Amino acid sequence: MENYRLFLLFLIAALAVGFTSVVFVLRWVFYFKEGLAWDGGLAEFNWHPVLILTGFIYIQGIAIVVYRLPWTWRCSKLMMKFIHAGLHSLAFILVVIALVAVFDFHNEKRIPNMYSLHSWVGLAAVVLYALQLVLGLCVYLIPVTPLYLRAAFMPLHIYSGLFIFSSAIATSLMGITEKLIFGLKDPKYSDSPAEATFVNVLGVLLTLFGALILWLTTHPSWKRPGEHQQQSRLSEQEASADLPVGSTLSTLGSTDKEACCDTQKRHCEPDGPGQ
Amino acid sequence: MENYRLFLLFLIAALAVGFTSVVFVLRWVFYFKEGLAWDGGLAEFNWHPVLILTGFIYIQGIAIVVYRLPWTWRCSKLMMKFIHAGLHSLAFILVVIALVAVFDFHNEKRIPNMYSLHSWVGLAAVVLYALQLVLGLCVYLIPVTPLYLRAAFMPLHIYSGLFIFSSAIATSLMGITEKLIFGLKDPKYSDSPAEATFVNVLGVLLTLFGALILWLTTHPSWKRPGEHQQQSRLSEQEASADLPVGSTLSTLGSTDKEACCDTQKRHCEPDGPGQ
Repeated sequence: MENYRLFLLFLIAALAVGFTSVVFVLRWVFYFKEGLAWDGGLAEFNWHPVLILTGFIYIQGIAIVVYRLPWTWRCSKLMMKFIHAGLHSLAFILVVIALVAVFDFHNEKRIPNMYSLHSWVGLAAVVLYALQLVLGLCVYLIPVTPLYLRAAFMPLHIYSGLFIFSSAIATSLMGITEKLIFGLKDPKYSDSPAEATFVNVLGVLLTLFGALILWLTTHPSWKRPGEHQQQSRLSEQEASADLPVGSTLSTLGSTDKEACCDTQKRHCEPDGPGQ
Repeated sequence: MENYRLFLLFLIAALAVGFTSVVFVLRWVFYFKEGLAWDGGLAEFNWHPVLILTGFIYIQGIAIVVYRLPWTWRCSKLMMKFIHAGLHSLAFILVVIALVAVFDFHNEKRIPNMYSLHSWVGLAAVVLYALQLVLGLCVYLIPVTPLYLRAAFMPLHIYSGLFIFSSAIATSLMGITEKLIFGLKDPKYSDSPAEATFVNVLGVLLTLFGALILWLTTHPSWKRPGEHQQQSRLSEQEASADLPVGSTLSTLGSTDKEACCDTQKRHCEPDGPGQ
């Protein structure tokens, strides 16, 4: 990989910023707000930001970037697809619980649902996420799907993934704005109490996390090599080591078993998801 | 260009959605709010959403997409750079006036400045936009800048441009949320009066505009061909028409003058901005 150290620096920064965001939302909820519970009150509402930030932003961000990790490039494509789809499915489950929490809280307190721009854009993002997940599973994990369809769908799959991820962050920024205006009364949001400044910093961290994940996943030289490239690289290794053609594949397959690799059973297609 | 009709469809949709957003913000300001004036009151504040949506979103969106218009591919790269930089400069001037309007209004009404997440992310986006503009001018319009520097800076220039554009939209969605909560009292935002629904639709239009511009500018097959490709395409034309090498360049230079083209003075570099 070109500029491996720089990649690692960005990756560590992204993971650290994302993790700090999750810590920040927990601190917000437990220190400044009512904690977490499932009682129809404000403590139930608090599951909404906690699960959205953890699932829809942090885990989704990791799921998006997973194909770019160079130490997974020897792993089988199928295994990487399962990890990618598994992380997205986990994120989706957390998002659904987050939605149930906020609808439950609104219904309990007789607050109207779906009146705000935050709820409109947010629900649209969740519906698109569900659609992306189902289409992704059908196109890339059902073996009978023809290769030409997989290749044709790939640009849309990548674009939609990044767009949904960005929309999730934009929606969270709106949600933070709403919550700080409604939740802070005396002192008000405009008086800049400690909670306001703390949660503004959380919003900046989320934006930064988005920026880092988008940089990692769109930087052309950090792309997972295509199957053809991998194949020719392995052949080159074989040639330079004076090994019989195909032997590196089997060697890799046997030595890297512990590292989830199964190069021999490579799931060949021209451009896999998230590349 | 591959799928020219589809490109045209997306382009027309983007321009129409962006233009409708500008019409919507004007209708919001003139029909639901206090109109426009420069009096330190709410009518002065209204310049803020109008100019941000027109400059920071609509004009910036057009400036970003301008390199992808296939009928400009025969125009000189230098001319396209001037159009790209000119549109961004115009957008930046409108953004500065929009900021002056809101600071002036806040100071007049003794409302604190820079307390909200909207203002933090928004100001960061404007500062980055200024930096992007200055660096872009220095790297791509000062003739002495070496080619290797232009090529090395390009991925960052493209990424930053798209990130700033997305941040501008996210900030606008936060601004809309703030304004609807603060501006609607009886009926409240949660009562979903006509203004709330109308402005929520504006927010959805802005998101859609962002989605269309990002699709147009990141779709690989709609990329402006590189200089080398253009050069070889022209050489092929010359070869097939049995013309002396270089003659197509001069022919294009003279016949397409009215269409802003100056192919002879092509400003050669491997990957121009926004490609």
